[in-house]
Amino acid sequence: MIIVTNDDGVHSPGIIALAKSLSEFNIKVVAPKGAQSSTGMSITFHRPITMSRVSKNNYDAIALAGTPADCVFVSIHKLFKRKKVDMIVSGINLGENISMQSFFSSGTVSAAMSGSIIGIKSVAFSKVIPNTTELLTEREFRPAAEWAKRIVSFLLSEGFPPGVDLLNVNFPLKVTKSTKVQVTLMAKEEFEDYVVGRTDPRGNRYFWLAGDKIEAAEEGTDAYATLAEGKISITPISISSIQRESDRKVQDHFDKLVNTQD
Amino acid sequence: MIIVTNDDGVHSPGIIALAKSLSEFNIKVVAPKGAQSSTGMSITFHRPITMSRVSKNNYDAIALAGTPADCVFVSIHKLFKRKKVDMIVSGINLGENISMQSFFSSGTVSAAMSGSIIGIKSVAFSKVIPNTTELLTEREFRPAAEWAKRIVSFLLSEGFPPGVDLLNVNFPLKVTKSTKVQVTLMAKEEFEDYVVGRTDPRGNRYFWLAGDKIEAAEEGTDAYATLAEGKISITPISISSIQRESDRKVQDHFDKLVNTQD
Repeated sequence: MIIVTNDDGVHSPGIIALAKSLSEFNIKVVAPKGAQSSTGMSITFHRPITMSRVSKNNYDAIALAGTPADCVFVSIHKLFKRKKVDMIVSGINLGENISMQSFFSSGTVSAAMSGSIIGIKSVAFSKVIPNTTELLTEREFRPAAEWAKRIVSFLLSEGFPPGVDLLNVNFPLKVTKSTKVQVTLMAKEEFEDYVVGRTDPRGNRYFWLAGDKIEAAEEGTDAYATLAEGKISITPISISSIQRESDRKVQDHFDKLVNTQD
Repeated sequence: MIIVTNDDGVHSPGIIALAKSLSEFNIKVVAPKGAQSSTGMSITFHRPITMSRVSKNNYDAIALAGTPADCVFVSIHKLFKRKKVDMIVSGINLGENISMQSFFSSGTVSAAMSGSIIGIKSVAFSKVIPNTTELLTEREFRPAAEWAKRIVSFLLSEGFPPGVDLLNVNFPLKVTKSTKVQVTLMAKEEFEDYVVGRTDPRGNRYFWLAGDKIEAAEEGTDAYATLAEGKISITPISISSIQRESDRKVQDHFDKLVNTQD
């Protein structure tokens, strides 16, 4: 069983295209009722999470009034048997997630991470979207969704690489059947005037998190450069590798703190 | 300069104790106006973040109507010069953060991570709190705050271990000057009936994320066992190590996907 979720909400064209393309697999769509972008791995403990059912053309979905991580939790611990869940597939996100910053604050990625940290392999799909105010439709995401199916099929037959428990996949603006794939590192991101400060009519300060985001490509090999070249970027992630307890040099570094106690 | 923040809000006894203990350093307290537990690395883009000033006994603080990650962003990109920020210190959180799940969903840890991912070293402090409904006071956190000062002093003079950009520090329930310190891995966490399903008076289903959390200690060496033994747990973290792009075996694994395109 594959749990399909996202952070743009159950009615997002990104998840509709994804669910349709994965319809030949045993999928269960459990997604936030509304938009939950940039909620990170936020979890809802302070209020109950209501559930509703949504019927789409090719599939039924469960909508939860919660975050992407909530959707994974409720799916795994209540709606379905955890052992039967083979993979969490999240997306297709409206906009790329190619830096460490966007990786950890993205709800789409965090839904995938919520699976990975409890041992369920996962994939987050995100896509560059056109810079327009026009409404995006499912059609926009179809070619990427076909690639998502190809990647999920590959993972179901070949498995994940050794030590890897999450793939952060980003699609460029234009995707075709012959779009190239590259294994990447995430991009380094620079923020220029990232926070805009203003003053309200009563003289109180307030801030908008926005401003211009400048991404620095690392000589054509990182996720940013890969998307800019029109290729699909796959960043393999090993969540548990963030820990450094077993490193002897790290242990030794704390000797003074650990031993000089009276 | 040290930015002091948390996720329990600017009035939490945990941050008050921490700020007091660090008062001999050049600290700036910038914390959420209200409680922001379990918000992960959630970032506020959809509305402005209002600012107010809070005066405490020994220091002034800035309160932001946003998440812990927002506090770090506004601090680094607007309130202070990024180059002058030596460290982000977050906490002391009301309750321990010793599993991967709580690590990534904790606002306290995420504030620290928001620093780490842009190259500012950081420490997250959390503490086991008594299982009581009585109001916690600053006094409860004083011995832990003294240890926090000792750890911050150590880091300012000795630096962080090689490759480590974040320390996840957890204090046991009872802390004294002679409490032992241990370098740990985070605990494996098991959820038992983690999601509680209910039905409202109209017959609609809803869920509470709660239930019983069972933590399994790994033969006395992980963060859970360390706290249970009454020791302070320090888990060294290297955020960027989650990426596996340079691993040859990982690259090779994708050969079929990367090369068999027509």
